[in-house]
Amino acid sequence: MTSPGGRPTLAVVGATGAVGTVLLSLLSARKDIWGEIRLSASRRSAGKFLSVRGQRSEVRLLEGSVLDGADVVVFDVPPAVSAQWAPIAAARGAVAVDNSSAFRLDPDVPLVVPEVNAGDVADRPRGIVSSPNCTTLAMIVPLAALHREFGLRELVVSGYLAASGEGQAGIAALHDQLAKVALQPGLGGIAGGVRRAAGDSLGPFPAPLAMNVVPWSGTARAGGWTSEELAVRDEARKILGLPGLRVSVTCVRVPVVTAHSLSVHAVFDREITQDRAQQVLSGAPGVVLYDDPAEGEFPTPADVVGTDPTWVGRVRRSLDDPHALDLFVCGDNLRKGAALNTLQLAELVAAAL
Amino acid sequence: MTSPGGRPTLAVVGATGAVGTVLLSLLSARKDIWGEIRLSASRRSAGKFLSVRGQRSEVRLLEGSVLDGADVVVFDVPPAVSAQWAPIAAARGAVAVDNSSAFRLDPDVPLVVPEVNAGDVADRPRGIVSSPNCTTLAMIVPLAALHREFGLRELVVSGYLAASGEGQAGIAALHDQLAKVALQPGLGGIAGGVRRAAGDSLGPFPAPLAMNVVPWSGTARAGGWTSEELAVRDEARKILGLPGLRVSVTCVRVPVVTAHSLSVHAVFDREITQDRAQQVLSGAPGVVLYDDPAEGEFPTPADVVGTDPTWVGRVRRSLDDPHALDLFVCGDNLRKGAALNTLQLAELVAAAL
Repeated sequence: MTSPGGRPTLAVVGATGAVGTVLLSLLSARKDIWGEIRLSASRRSAGKFLSVRGQRSEVRLLEGSVLDGADVVVFDVPPAVSAQWAPIAAARGAVAVDNSSAFRLDPDVPLVVPEVNAGDVADRPRGIVSSPNCTTLAMIVPLAALHREFGLRELVVSGYLAASGEGQAGIAALHDQLAKVALQPGLGGIAGGVRRAAGDSLGPFPAPLAMNVVPWSGTARAGGWTSEELAVRDEARKILGLPGLRVSVTCVRVPVVTAHSLSVHAVFDREITQDRAQQVLSGAPGVVLYDDPAEGEFPTPADVVGTDPTWVGRVRRSLDDPHALDLFVCGDNLRKGAALNTLQLAELVAAAL
Repeated sequence: MTSPGGRPTLAVVGATGAVGTVLLSLLSARKDIWGEIRLSASRRSAGKFLSVRGQRSEVRLLEGSVLDGADVVVFDVPPAVSAQWAPIAAARGAVAVDNSSAFRLDPDVPLVVPEVNAGDVADRPRGIVSSPNCTTLAMIVPLAALHREFGLRELVVSGYLAASGEGQAGIAALHDQLAKVALQPGLGGIAGGVRRAAGDSLGPFPAPLAMNVVPWSGTARAGGWTSEELAVRDEARKILGLPGLRVSVTCVRVPVVTAHSLSVHAVFDREITQDRAQQVLSGAPGVVLYDDPAEGEFPTPADVVGTDPTWVGRVRRSLDDPHALDLFVCGDNLRKGAALNTLQLAELVAAAL
């Protein structure tokens, strides 16, 4: 199935979205292991030309012929599209690597983060490998490193989630709103001022995001939880192999374009110290410890956007519980949180073909 | 000491600051219990005229004569000014109500939130009553109501703190930065783009705040904590009378002008349910339960700014611990978080003179 020279064929479905765009730039920047690369998208974008590895490539309508002969098919599309097309790709002999929520909790689909559970990628009864939610990915690499050393028991997580978690529509809505409110200094001090100014620019958000924060992400679930909050709990348990892990998540959207941040309170089986935690984190692949507040060193979304690792700062041992650690993590939700992890999975799969 | 007609004399020190400005508007709007109201400020602002209760009043330089004959003196000034002048006011026979950090943890100074521990205001050996930090005040009223019912044991708190927590300088810096970055849509997707654009407009913040979040508030303390994070822990313990309360706080500044939000994970001695928690909160004075996400009802800073209560939404019982509750609280940091609580304390003191 591989192209001449033995290099595998990759198909990218959803090449024109917020995540697909980053995926193409990563394909151009990373070690090139691929033979043919095919690009595909919905009817709205088919026929466009995009650049990948320095070559213009036509975006093809998603249909069976796009998948024929592909070794790996990456899906960066809504869950309904993945649910329909990933099994078709697998049936045609490709391995599907899916970045949607469609298969993340399917017991016959591995949910993989290469720095954490790379080995799981090989056990894929349905021919599908799944990449986690961007919020899970914002924290899971450093937490897995700490878990290996101290034994993770409980997580309390509060999110500072970027607008691009809602794709191009989220980015556009934030920019529209900022343009309307940013030059009206009085608005932020008046009840409802920002809401009136934002007007019909809410986009995919349930409340104005510019000069505001919105404690909601996903759809409503029982008990007052959101789908994204439950997803982080379920996915963290699955990736870490800890079905009994206690997890409470609160997802809050902030007026940041790209890069998710999380405030994490983690409780471990074994006692932990600030020094030992910092040592473990500074040696963990995929993690950058950036933690010297006296020198102004802590991660912020504006500084880590466009980078690959998970950045960790504000590492503190709880004053009241020697088993608990508080930390602040930050990562690009379109890169490690989506396109990068998906591409790493495609590379893992391809290396073992 | 009271003015003709028996109504007490109030002096407001720091009348021209971000908090003082709100205090004057509250004095004009609330039930008028005061005789004379004197305004005072530093040399920079002395001689200005401000409106209070519909009358123009000259701002006087802070000196002994401003305090003479005052029954209550409210201080909305930096801690060093309070530390010097509140004892002078008390020595001259007034009760000092201080909104700075100078006396909050002094065992001889009560730290009071009227809805929580109003009775403590009467026990003031130094003649000084202290009002808590704005972050403590963003959560303490609903948490005290839950504590009375379920017995509070532990708090894990992540802050979404507004720029005006750093006063007029914070508001100005955020507006300067927004004006520079908001109309450049590409910046938020480029590493360091926002930082370069914000340039020298950092103001009181250690990193750009526009299109960013900054996980730092206060000054550096041992173990990686900040002064504000430790203050919330110490103050919550003192106000609730729970010296052993376990508290972990992470303070993060967000690009919101006014109104602090907090994501709170609270663990109780007794089992709790979502329904019972909502019942308790909806009956608590000073609290508005706004918690019907399916109808788009949850508090956001843009919607609660300019209002008096603490707003509570996203009330959820932990899925993994029947003793734990997650909630999102939101309140105006210049009103209940500062000016309103201070004025409530002044009114409490005056009522018992």
